[in-house]
Amino acid sequence: MKLRPLISACTLLAISVCTPLAAKTIDTERAKIELETVAEGLKNPWGLAFLPDGAMLVTERVGDMRKVSADGKVGEPITGLPEIFSRGQGGLLDIALDPDYENNGWIYFSYSEPGDGGNSTALARAKLDGNALVDLQRIFSQQPKVNSNNHFGSRIVFKDDGTLFLTLGDRYSHKDDAQTLDNHLGKVIRINTDGSIPADNPFVNTEGALPEIWSYGHRNMQGAAVHPETGELWSGEHGAQGGDELNIDRAGLNYGWPVITYGENYGGGKIGEGFKKDGMETPVYYWLPSLATAGLTFYTGDVFPDWQGDVFVASLRAETLARLDVEGERVLHEERLLADELGERLRHVVQGPDGYLYLLTDASDGKIIRITPAD
Amino acid sequence: MKLRPLISACTLLAISVCTPLAAKTIDTERAKIELETVAEGLKNPWGLAFLPDGAMLVTERVGDMRKVSADGKVGEPITGLPEIFSRGQGGLLDIALDPDYENNGWIYFSYSEPGDGGNSTALARAKLDGNALVDLQRIFSQQPKVNSNNHFGSRIVFKDDGTLFLTLGDRYSHKDDAQTLDNHLGKVIRINTDGSIPADNPFVNTEGALPEIWSYGHRNMQGAAVHPETGELWSGEHGAQGGDELNIDRAGLNYGWPVITYGENYGGGKIGEGFKKDGMETPVYYWLPSLATAGLTFYTGDVFPDWQGDVFVASLRAETLARLDVEGERVLHEERLLADELGERLRHVVQGPDGYLYLLTDASDGKIIRITPAD
Repeated sequence: MKLRPLISACTLLAISVCTPLAAKTIDTERAKIELETVAEGLKNPWGLAFLPDGAMLVTERVGDMRKVSADGKVGEPITGLPEIFSRGQGGLLDIALDPDYENNGWIYFSYSEPGDGGNSTALARAKLDGNALVDLQRIFSQQPKVNSNNHFGSRIVFKDDGTLFLTLGDRYSHKDDAQTLDNHLGKVIRINTDGSIPADNPFVNTEGALPEIWSYGHRNMQGAAVHPETGELWSGEHGAQGGDELNIDRAGLNYGWPVITYGENYGGGKIGEGFKKDGMETPVYYWLPSLATAGLTFYTGDVFPDWQGDVFVASLRAETLARLDVEGERVLHEERLLADELGERLRHVVQGPDGYLYLLTDASDGKIIRITPAD
Repeated sequence: MKLRPLISACTLLAISVCTPLAAKTIDTERAKIELETVAEGLKNPWGLAFLPDGAMLVTERVGDMRKVSADGKVGEPITGLPEIFSRGQGGLLDIALDPDYENNGWIYFSYSEPGDGGNSTALARAKLDGNALVDLQRIFSQQPKVNSNNHFGSRIVFKDDGTLFLTLGDRYSHKDDAQTLDNHLGKVIRINTDGSIPADNPFVNTEGALPEIWSYGHRNMQGAAVHPETGELWSGEHGAQGGDELNIDRAGLNYGWPVITYGENYGGGKIGEGFKKDGMETPVYYWLPSLATAGLTFYTGDVFPDWQGDVFVASLRAETLARLDVEGERVLHEERLLADELGERLRHVVQGPDGYLYLLTDASDGKIIRITPAD
């Protein structure tokens, strides 16, 4: 009999905590929106892919992949993953379905792979059989492996020609390697979905260059997406203490890290030679101070008509979702969403098949949050 | 004897008010700066021009022009001004010296001119003789005159070919006139310095069009400057409740107001047809929510090397100085300066001959403030 009042108090508490997120209308510049928690209890979720039935595959950086049902039920860890180096920024990272998934069943995922000399980012594909991955194939492994817990990249983006891009970080301790073509550090690579190398890659005929390389001079790109009209790859790159960049990554071009950057060394002091240099690309846009940019997507849905064509960028440090009004290759305006209403580190933003935006919060009790229209 | 403690207290107060502004180092993204009050007691200063001896000519919206010596002494009102309509946003507005001032002595100034049907923006030139303007010539008068206290423009900018631009507002109550060429509302005009019309203006051969018109579809541009390398006119435009714009104003082009805009009606509700339309230019950049953009300049000095090529925009409502990192025709990044450290409505920003930036605060006790390097 004594317990009853205590239980009632807890029930009330639970309601007061959960209701505001579900019910509050947020009036943004171009849309009235609401937030809804789809799932929670995920350990630093990093990547998200929608299955044809509306369920989601989610990666947790700690090294687990889980299916989350359309109504938010979080499944047990999927078995059959390769060995993963889960430390620092490393772990199980991005996930994407083959554009022809309904016919071939391939699921691609990136991860930190341990091995001789340290670790590096790898890309594998496998098929899902019940709650197990089968037919596992490692289709790419970043060279060289180094002893570092940082700057793994890595987003998987399909081009419209049967190839895919993978963004690869400079591993932090090896930033000068981003400028040379004999390694995969600080690069975007382009490969066929079976891991073979496209004949029209920019450096296939360059002596001493690794043929997977698409673009170079990068630092750590945790966001990337293909422009819905031009088909070009746009990526978001963590800068050093400021100088996060939005780039259009074009075949064979040098994006300047660590020679040119808008960032500074932690604690102060210039890096490199300034802001621009012949033969190196400057960004479409940059953030100083840094947002710590992570996942990135173009919005193409019908649910938020005034967001069509906009770029959304998840931010870790600034705990915001940046909306960029883009025209051609220009960013005309930036709006920062949800810093006040949500206030969570955001690892990723994905457009669902329903036209809603889905966010992953970067926390040990991480969530999938859906943005829906308020009306 | 009784008075002595009171006087001491007042002296101490004066020191404590003035010292922080002069001494505090402000650490911005690209420069460590200090602020210094050059002059005060100006009534809503609007325009600022440097004389060859380092003194300044300053306009006060209330209708006075004053010389301020290089060491900050504010002179008596200069005599010889024409009749000025000083109400609302109207009054004595911009001021500029002829590029060949040392030889010809011409001083140009814009102002709200009363007349049949109401008032409009006019441009005059005169020479300074002691503390009097002489040889006054009105070289342009905006048509038609209307009954409105708002949206006069007006910045005077010299092109490098012996012509000048004047920006002209839509007078608020006549916004649809910005779309037709039979009037000067919501236009940039280009004239010769004697008021005659350049033969290569875009509409000189267009029937029914006023031949002074350079570009149209504008709302209220209180900032304008010529790009130091391209020679093109860049202007800052007040939008309606958001949607302040930065434009490159090109010959004969339509900048869309009030058909396309990023702004909304005050109190909510869309204006016009959306964000873009064939045959209308979209801005290089825009601010939503609005800063209320006023004066604008390109920094070209040596004192702040990492600011070279940047656009500075004075903001009234947001009480900030926006620094835009510009590359070509793209704005890569915006920094907002001084909102915390100064917190004043800013009407104008001008680069002095000494390479420092000078600000005008929009207040009945308005100031000229100089930004100097802290080191």
